[in-house]
Amino acid sequence: MCEAHAYLRRGDREELIFENVDKVEPQNDCLLLENIFGQRKMVKARIKELALVDHKIILEEE
Amino acid sequence: MCEAHAYLRRGDREELIFENVDKVEPQNDCLLLENIFGQRKMVKARIKELALVDHKIILEEE
Repeated sequence: MCEAHAYLRRGDREELIFENVDKVEPQNDCLLLENIFGQRKMVKARIKELALVDHKIILEEE
Repeated sequence: MCEAHAYLRRGDREELIFENVDKVEPQNDCLLLENIFGQRKMVKARIKELALVDHKIILEEE
């Protein structure tokens, strides 16, 4: 499976906030994340970087 | 491998613009895409949707 994990970058730390993410949809100043089980999470953040081979979605707060 | 393909959505069409994308980095009003071979492409677009299990990165023009 090619899901990724979402991390929130704060300074030089990265906090894991949601695992096994399948879908990401920007909505206004938020991101709607959906994992492979259909569970959803809305976070007030933007995409800082994707590193798909490393299964990483790096977010940062708006 | 868990790379994805980048598509530019125009109306109800999706145009494949870059394959085997590993990294995506938003920069101002552009996106820097890098594929698994280290080749890069800058596109003036934003992320509309990610569907990682389907290996799709959907972009739309700014």
